[in-house]
Amino acid sequence: MVDTTGFRNAMALLGGAVSVITTDGAAGRFGFTASAVCSVTDQPPTLLVCMNRSSYSNVHFKSNGVLCVNVLSADHQGTSGVFANRELTMEQRFGTARWQVLESGAPVLDEALVSFDCRIAQAHEVGSHTIFYCEILDLKMGASQEGLVYFNRAYHRLSSNA
Amino acid sequence: MVDTTGFRNAMALLGGAVSVITTDGAAGRFGFTASAVCSVTDQPPTLLVCMNRSSYSNVHFKSNGVLCVNVLSADHQGTSGVFANRELTMEQRFGTARWQVLESGAPVLDEALVSFDCRIAQAHEVGSHTIFYCEILDLKMGASQEGLVYFNRAYHRLSSNA
Repeated sequence: MVDTTGFRNAMALLGGAVSVITTDGAAGRFGFTASAVCSVTDQPPTLLVCMNRSSYSNVHFKSNGVLCVNVLSADHQGTSGVFANRELTMEQRFGTARWQVLESGAPVLDEALVSFDCRIAQAHEVGSHTIFYCEILDLKMGASQEGLVYFNRAYHRLSSNA
Repeated sequence: MVDTTGFRNAMALLGGAVSVITTDGAAGRFGFTASAVCSVTDQPPTLLVCMNRSSYSNVHFKSNGVLCVNVLSADHQGTSGVFANRELTMEQRFGTARWQVLESGAPVLDEALVSFDCRIAQAHEVGSHTIFYCEILDLKMGASQEGLVYFNRAYHRLSSNA
């Protein structure tokens, strides 16, 4: 079996987009930075999000039953840091950017590369994490075409040209 | 509800690492190119892979019960194309590169950025796709530190420096 440090060092080489995952509803407004987001199927349009179960907002995402995946653009490094900072309250985090809502009511980040507004169709517990299977109710494409990727423990800017 | 074309155009903006997923065993040797791979948890070290159920090799991955996620380096664009090409036989695909094995027996690509040698712990069907939850038995880091990312329908090279 692979040890935790070896696993984390190896996983750092699996580059991925950076997103801020948000929710709002009766349980309140929450958001966190994630890189474990995947497309699943287009029948119906579905993605998945992995979230640590030890996060205090995990239960509130489940309770609200909705979330928005805001895929960050290259200019959103600061927003990524804010939503990964456990010392900031949710009010402080959301105060650093502008938000809209679509169908689900979850906060949609202004100028995200793309936002996927979702209903949580299923929550699957695997070890320390919850995998949320999310049906996409609506989406919003931003104006930017420059993506943000986290790879080898650093941010990288992706232009729309290769 | 979001239409299929809109979903695919939006998902093209979710950048991701490119991997070749392989298996070998009693059901035979198979491999395909994938970008839907996520880290799940380090207790025990687990990742997930999304695979189309309509792929003829889907049932053989399940039957072998093992797979290897070979995360491609920046120099592996050709290998990505080969394992995404439905007109090539498995023999032709595997003939274009060199392979080793670790614990599971699934093919490990020489000079991959990193390879995760896995046991399929669980297969979860969601719409048109299977999500394989895979426990990592062993891993192998390559010498390259340059990653390959697919974003906005093009390949991008990531250096180890931001």
